[in-house]
Amino acid sequence: MTATSAFITSLLTSFGIFCGLVFAFSILSKWKVNHNIYYSSRIISGEGPTAAASTRNPFTWLYEAIFTSDAELVRVAGLDAAIYLNFFVCILEIFGYSSLFCIPVLIPIAAKSKSNADAFQLDPNMTYDGFDNLAMGNVEEGTKKLWAFLVGTYWVSIMTYCVLVKHYKKMIHLRGKEQAHEKPAPQQFSCLVRDIPPKPKGMSRREQVNAFFRKIHPDTYENCLIVCNLKKLTKMWTKYQAAKRNLEHAEAVHEESKVTAKPEGIRPMHRLYFLGLFGPKVDSINFYEEQVREIGRAVEAEQQRTLKEEQLPAAFVFFNNRRAAAEAAQAVHAPYAMQWQVYPAPEPREVVWKNLHKSVYERLIRQGLVYFAVFMTVLFYMIPIALISSFTTLDNLVKFLPFLKVIVEYPPINTVLQAFLPQIALIIFLSLLPSLLMALSRMEGIPSQSHVVRGASGKYFYFIVFNVFLGVTLFGTVFSSLAGFQTLFNSKNFSVSSVVSLFGSKLPPVAAYFITFVALQFFVGYGLELSRVVPLAVYHLKKTFFCKTQKELEEAWEPGPFEYHNLVPNDILILMISMAYAVIAPMILLFALLYFAIGYVVLRNQALKVYVPAFESGGRMWPHIHSRIVAALFIGQVTMMGYMGIKKFPYAVLVIILPLFTIFFASMCKMNYYPSFNVISLAIASEDVKESPPMRKIIEAYTPECLLTEERALEESAHYEDALESSVSSRPMGVSRSNSVHESTENLYAL
Amino acid sequence: MTATSAFITSLLTSFGIFCGLVFAFSILSKWKVNHNIYYSSRIISGEGPTAAASTRNPFTWLYEAIFTSDAELVRVAGLDAAIYLNFFVCILEIFGYSSLFCIPVLIPIAAKSKSNADAFQLDPNMTYDGFDNLAMGNVEEGTKKLWAFLVGTYWVSIMTYCVLVKHYKKMIHLRGKEQAHEKPAPQQFSCLVRDIPPKPKGMSRREQVNAFFRKIHPDTYENCLIVCNLKKLTKMWTKYQAAKRNLEHAEAVHEESKVTAKPEGIRPMHRLYFLGLFGPKVDSINFYEEQVREIGRAVEAEQQRTLKEEQLPAAFVFFNNRRAAAEAAQAVHAPYAMQWQVYPAPEPREVVWKNLHKSVYERLIRQGLVYFAVFMTVLFYMIPIALISSFTTLDNLVKFLPFLKVIVEYPPINTVLQAFLPQIALIIFLSLLPSLLMALSRMEGIPSQSHVVRGASGKYFYFIVFNVFLGVTLFGTVFSSLAGFQTLFNSKNFSVSSVVSLFGSKLPPVAAYFITFVALQFFVGYGLELSRVVPLAVYHLKKTFFCKTQKELEEAWEPGPFEYHNLVPNDILILMISMAYAVIAPMILLFALLYFAIGYVVLRNQALKVYVPAFESGGRMWPHIHSRIVAALFIGQVTMMGYMGIKKFPYAVLVIILPLFTIFFASMCKMNYYPSFNVISLAIASEDVKESPPMRKIIEAYTPECLLTEERALEESAHYEDALESSVSSRPMGVSRSNSVHESTENLYAL
Repeated sequence: MTATSAFITSLLTSFGIFCGLVFAFSILSKWKVNHNIYYSSRIISGEGPTAAASTRNPFTWLYEAIFTSDAELVRVAGLDAAIYLNFFVCILEIFGYSSLFCIPVLIPIAAKSKSNADAFQLDPNMTYDGFDNLAMGNVEEGTKKLWAFLVGTYWVSIMTYCVLVKHYKKMIHLRGKEQAHEKPAPQQFSCLVRDIPPKPKGMSRREQVNAFFRKIHPDTYENCLIVCNLKKLTKMWTKYQAAKRNLEHAEAVHEESKVTAKPEGIRPMHRLYFLGLFGPKVDSINFYEEQVREIGRAVEAEQQRTLKEEQLPAAFVFFNNRRAAAEAAQAVHAPYAMQWQVYPAPEPREVVWKNLHKSVYERLIRQGLVYFAVFMTVLFYMIPIALISSFTTLDNLVKFLPFLKVIVEYPPINTVLQAFLPQIALIIFLSLLPSLLMALSRMEGIPSQSHVVRGASGKYFYFIVFNVFLGVTLFGTVFSSLAGFQTLFNSKNFSVSSVVSLFGSKLPPVAAYFITFVALQFFVGYGLELSRVVPLAVYHLKKTFFCKTQKELEEAWEPGPFEYHNLVPNDILILMISMAYAVIAPMILLFALLYFAIGYVVLRNQALKVYVPAFESGGRMWPHIHSRIVAALFIGQVTMMGYMGIKKFPYAVLVIILPLFTIFFASMCKMNYYPSFNVISLAIASEDVKESPPMRKIIEAYTPECLLTEERALEESAHYEDALESSVSSRPMGVSRSNSVHESTENLYAL
Repeated sequence: MTATSAFITSLLTSFGIFCGLVFAFSILSKWKVNHNIYYSSRIISGEGPTAAASTRNPFTWLYEAIFTSDAELVRVAGLDAAIYLNFFVCILEIFGYSSLFCIPVLIPIAAKSKSNADAFQLDPNMTYDGFDNLAMGNVEEGTKKLWAFLVGTYWVSIMTYCVLVKHYKKMIHLRGKEQAHEKPAPQQFSCLVRDIPPKPKGMSRREQVNAFFRKIHPDTYENCLIVCNLKKLTKMWTKYQAAKRNLEHAEAVHEESKVTAKPEGIRPMHRLYFLGLFGPKVDSINFYEEQVREIGRAVEAEQQRTLKEEQLPAAFVFFNNRRAAAEAAQAVHAPYAMQWQVYPAPEPREVVWKNLHKSVYERLIRQGLVYFAVFMTVLFYMIPIALISSFTTLDNLVKFLPFLKVIVEYPPINTVLQAFLPQIALIIFLSLLPSLLMALSRMEGIPSQSHVVRGASGKYFYFIVFNVFLGVTLFGTVFSSLAGFQTLFNSKNFSVSSVVSLFGSKLPPVAAYFITFVALQFFVGYGLELSRVVPLAVYHLKKTFFCKTQKELEEAWEPGPFEYHNLVPNDILILMISMAYAVIAPMILLFALLYFAIGYVVLRNQALKVYVPAFESGGRMWPHIHSRIVAALFIGQVTMMGYMGIKKFPYAVLVIILPLFTIFFASMCKMNYYPSFNVISLAIASEDVKESPPMRKIIEAYTPECLLTEERALEESAHYEDALESSVSSRPMGVSRSNSVHESTENLYAL
C-alpha cells in the first residue's frame, strides 16, 4: 500500500523532526531560565539540576539517563516508574534476541524469493514495493524455505518466554526490596474494609468495626477510620481553596502595583458576574477576604456534620505491625464472604474516596454496565477506523473525493500526504480514547487510582486488538482495492476461504503500513516528550502574563506524573504489531528496537529529572503489562499459524504447539508470580523495620485533606498523643485500653 | 421414539421391582440377624437399631428418615452427608416451585394443540405417542401459545435462582456451625505446606520449616511434621497386616476345631505357593507367627530409615489456635508465591500421602495430561454411546441386525426390550466410568481424597454434557430414521439449518426417552439401595463360609461410606435432563420430583443408619454441586432459546436475557458464597473453643498409620509430654524453647 518512496519520505521527515527536537532540547535545557521545566523533579526535591545542565557536552543527559542505577531510579521516581522502564528493557531484550535470528536468516531468504515478482507478471495491478520483498509474502508457496520461518516462530516464542520469566523475577525482586524496606509506608499497616454490614442498634459504626476486628485480631488491631461521604464538603473545600488563591493573587497584584505604579499601590478591582466582565465593581482584596472568612466558617461546620452524619459502610483499619496487616488483607473475615471484605489499603494519595463505600452488588452491576459500554465503544469506533484505513492510500482518497485530484497529483504533496495522512488520522482518533476509558473505569467502583489506570489501559487493549490490529488489517486489506470490496460484499462469492486468501495476499503490505505508523509514533512522539516544547511555551507564557504569586508560578511548571494510561497502551500497541509481524516481516523488529530504545532513554531521562509520581502503587502495573505481552505473543503465534496455512506449508500444524504452550505459560506465571504482586507476602512483611511510623501519622495520612484543616491537624495530633500513649506502650490490650482510644477518637471526631 | 405403551411397560415394571424391594427391606430389616446390614452405623457407634427394627409398622423407617433433624444428621453422618441430602431438598424445591406453573399451565396448552396431528396427516411416517402430545412439540409454530412457554422459562429460572441463594446460605450456616464447634478438630489447627524450597546446607528439613514459620508466626506456630516417602514402607506394612490377619485366622480355625473335631484341635496347614495349592505343606500358625516376627522387625527398621532418609519437600504445620491456622492457610508466605504454598490441611483420614510432595510444576503438567486424557475419553466414549442410542428403537435394531426379527416380533418381548434395552446399555456403559475418573483425578496430584472425589465428579459432568445429553439427543435424533442419517452425511444437503430443523422436530420424543431413563434409574436404583440385597447376600455367604475371627466378621458387614463420585454425577445427570426439558416437556418434572423425593428418603435412611463416613471434607461438595446446577440451568435456557427459534417464535430473543443473567448469578455466587466454603473465615475461627486438643493428639492424627506402631505411639506421647510441657505453658517463645522441642522431636524421629 505505502510505496517505498512514501515510506522513506515518512521516515526521513520524522527523523528530521526528531533531530530538530533533540537539538532544541540540548540547547534549551542548558538555559537557566528553563531549568524548572527540564529538571522539575530535582528542583522540587531540592537537589537542583544535574551536571548535564552545565556541561557543554550535548550527550551528558544521555549518559545520565542510561547509567543511573535502578536503585537510584526507585529512590527518585518511585517503584512504578522503575518497573515501567524495566518493561522497556524487557521488550528490548525480547526483540534483540529475536532479531539475532530473524534479521540475518529470514530477510535474505525473503529477498532471494520471487513470489511477488511472479504475481506481478500475472497481474500487473498487484504492486509490491521494496519492503514487501523483504517479507515472508515474497516467499513462494509450499517451499522448503518456509521451514526457516517456522523455526523463526519458535525462536521468537522461546526467547520471549525466557526473557519474561527473567524479568518477572527481577520485578518481584525490585518490589520485594521496596516492600521490605526498613522504613515502612503507612499503607503497609493498613487495610481497606468494604461492605461493612448494617450496624446493630445502639452501636456507632466505629464501635461496630472496633468490636469486629478486636475479636479477630486481639493483639494486632489498633484503630479504624470510618469513610465519610465527602461530596458536599469537597465542593465547599474547592470553593474555599479558590477564594484563598484569588485573595493571594489580588494581594500580589497590589504589591506589584506599589513598585510599578504609585507607592501606595492600586487596589485591584473586579466585576462580580461572568468572568469579571459584568456587574458592579468591587475591591478584590476586601471581597475575597470576606469570602474566605465566610466559606471557612461554613467548611468547618460542614466538616463536623460530615464526620457525624455522613459515615459510610467502609473503613480503613490499622494494625500495629505490617505482617498483621498483610495477613489480614489476604483473609476472608466474615462467614458470608461478601461482608467485611478486607483488601490491602491503597496508598493514601491514590484513594478514590467516592468509590470506597460502593457495595459489592453495586460494583458488580456497574462493572457489567461499564463493560457493555466498552463493548459498544469498541464496536462503533470500528466504523471511523475502518474509514481511516480505507484512506491509507491516496488512490482511495481520490476515488472517494475526486475533487482532491488536482492537489494530490502535485508530487511533493502527494508523497507527504501518502506518508502521513492515515497515520495522523489514526493517532488523533486514538488520542481521544484514554480519557473516556479513565472515566469509565472510575465508574466501576475501583478504590484506587492506580487500579483505575490499569483498568483504562486494559480496556484500551481491547481496542488495540479489535480495532487497530484486526480492523486496520482486515479493512485495509479489503478497501485497498474495490475489487476486494466487491469480493467481500458480493454474497455469492462470499466464503471464508476467499476472505482468507485475500487477507493473506495483503498481509505484508499492511505490515509496511504499520512500520510507518511505528516510525511516526516514536520519532515525533519521543521528540516532543524529550524537548517538552509545549510545557515550555505554556510556562513562559503563564510566567509573563499571568503568574503573580509564588504558588501560581510553581503550578505553571508543575511537571505532573507519568500518564501511564496514555503511555502503556501505546507501547503495547507497538509491541503487539511488532510481535505479530516479527517473523512475517522481520524488518519491523529494527523499528521496534529503535522505538523501545529511544523510549527507554527519553523516558528514563524524564523519570529521573522531570516527572513527580502522584502516588505509588507498588509496581502493580507489571502483571498487567506481562499478561498483555503474553497475549501479544499468542496473537502473533495464531497469525503465524494462519499465514503459514495461506502459504500452503504442510507443516504449519507444528506451530499449534506454541499457542497451547503460551496458555500454559500464562497460567504458570499467574500461579507462580502474580500473587507476589497482588499481595504482600508474609515473609517480606515479617522483615524487621527500623522504625514504625507512629499511628497518628498513619491515620493522618488516610484523613482526606478537606477534613484536615491546619488547626484540626494540630488538635488531632495532641489528642492522638494522649490516646496512643495509653495504648501502644503495653501489649496485652484490655477493655480499658480500647475504651480510652475509643473515647479520645470520639472526642476528636466531636470537635 | 419410545411408544407410549413401551413407556408405560417400563414404568410399571420398574415400579413393580421397586415395590418388591421395599417390601423385602421392610421384612428383612426387622430380622435380628440382618441388623448388622441395616443398622450398621448405629451398631458401630454402639447405639443399636432404631425403633423401626422392632415395630410392626412398615413405615416407621420412613418416619425416622424424614423427621430426624439436620443437627442429628450432622452428628451421626457428618456434614458431608447432611449437605448432600440438603442438595436433594434444594432440587425438590426447585422442581416443586417450577411445576406449580409448568404442570397446570403448560401441559393443558400443549394437550389442546394439534401440531403433531397435523404433521401426522402430512407425513404418516412421523409417529407421535401420547406423551409427545403433552409437550411443547405439539404447539403450533409461531402462535401466541408460545408466550406461555416463554413465561415458563422465566418462572423456572427465577425459582432456581431464589432457591439456590436460600440453600447456599443454609449450607454456609450448616458449615459455619460445624467449623465454629467448640470441640475443634485437628485439621483446624493445621496447615499443609507444599513446595518447600531445597533446604539450605547444614540444616535439616525440620529446622528449615521451623525457622521459616517461627519468623512469620512467632506467637502462634507450634510444630511441624515433615512428609515422608512411604511407598516402600506401605508395601511392607500391608504385608505385615496381612500376615497378622492370616495368623489370627489360622488361630481361630484351630480354636474352632477344638469344638468341632477333637479337643486338642487340628492345627491348620496350607501349601506355600499360589493360593495355597502347590508347594510343601506347612503348619499355618507357626508359619505366620514366624512371618509376623520377621516382617515386624523389617518394618521397624524401615520406619527408622524412612523418617531419616525419605523426607520430602512437604509438611504439616501446627498452630496453637485455630484462628492462626485459618489465617495462615489464606496467606501467601514466600516472596515467590510458588514456594512455601500453604493450604488448609485436609482431614487426617483423607490425606493422599503420595501426592503431597508433588511440586507445583509437576502438578501443572499432570493436570494438563489428565485433562487431555479426559478429553480423549469423552471423545471416544461418544462412539459407543452413539451406537447405543441408535438402538433406542427396536426398529433400528432390527434394521441393523435382521436376524433378531423373529424374537423381537413376539409382542411381550418386543415391549419389554423396547422399554429397557437402550437404558440398560447406557447405564452399564456409564457405570464403568467413575472408577476410571477417580484414578485419573488421583493422578493429578490432589492432596485430599474429597477433592479427588470432586475432581472425578467434575470430569463425569463433561461426559454427561457432551455424551449423554448432546450425544443422545443429537444421535438419537439422527439415527431414529435412516433418512435422517442420510441427511446428515450427504454433504450436498448438509447445512446447519437442516440439522437444526431435524433436531427441533425430534427433540420432544428424545425427552420421552429421557423420562424412561430417569424412571428406570430411580425405581430400580433406589430399590436396590434401600433393600441392600447384594451386601446382605454377600454378608451371609461370608459369614457362613469364610469368617472365623471377629475382625473378619466385622469386615463382612462393614458398610463403607457414601460413594459420592458415583452418586453425585448421576443426580446431576437427572437434574440436567429435567432442567433442560422442564418447559419443553413438563411431564418430566413429575418424574424428577419422584426421583429426588425417593432418593431423599432412601439416602437419608442410609445416612442415618447404614453408611459410616470415611472422612469429613467440611461440606466442600456443595459449591461443586451448586455450580453444576447453575450450569444445568444455563444449558436449559440455551436449549429453550434454540427450541423457541425452531418454533418460529419472534419473541424468542427475550430468552437471551436469562443465560446472561445466569452468568452474572454464577459469578455473584462465586464471589459471595464460594470463599466461605473454600476457607474458614476468621470470624468463625475466632469463636471460643471449649478445649483445644493437645498438640500431641493433633500430631498423632497426622502421622500415617504405618509410622505409628503401638510402642512408638506410647513413647511418642511421653516425649511430646516433655516437649510440650516446656513450650505451651509460656507464651513468649525463645530460642531455648524451640531447641527443646526440636531436640525431643529429633529424638523421637531417631528412635
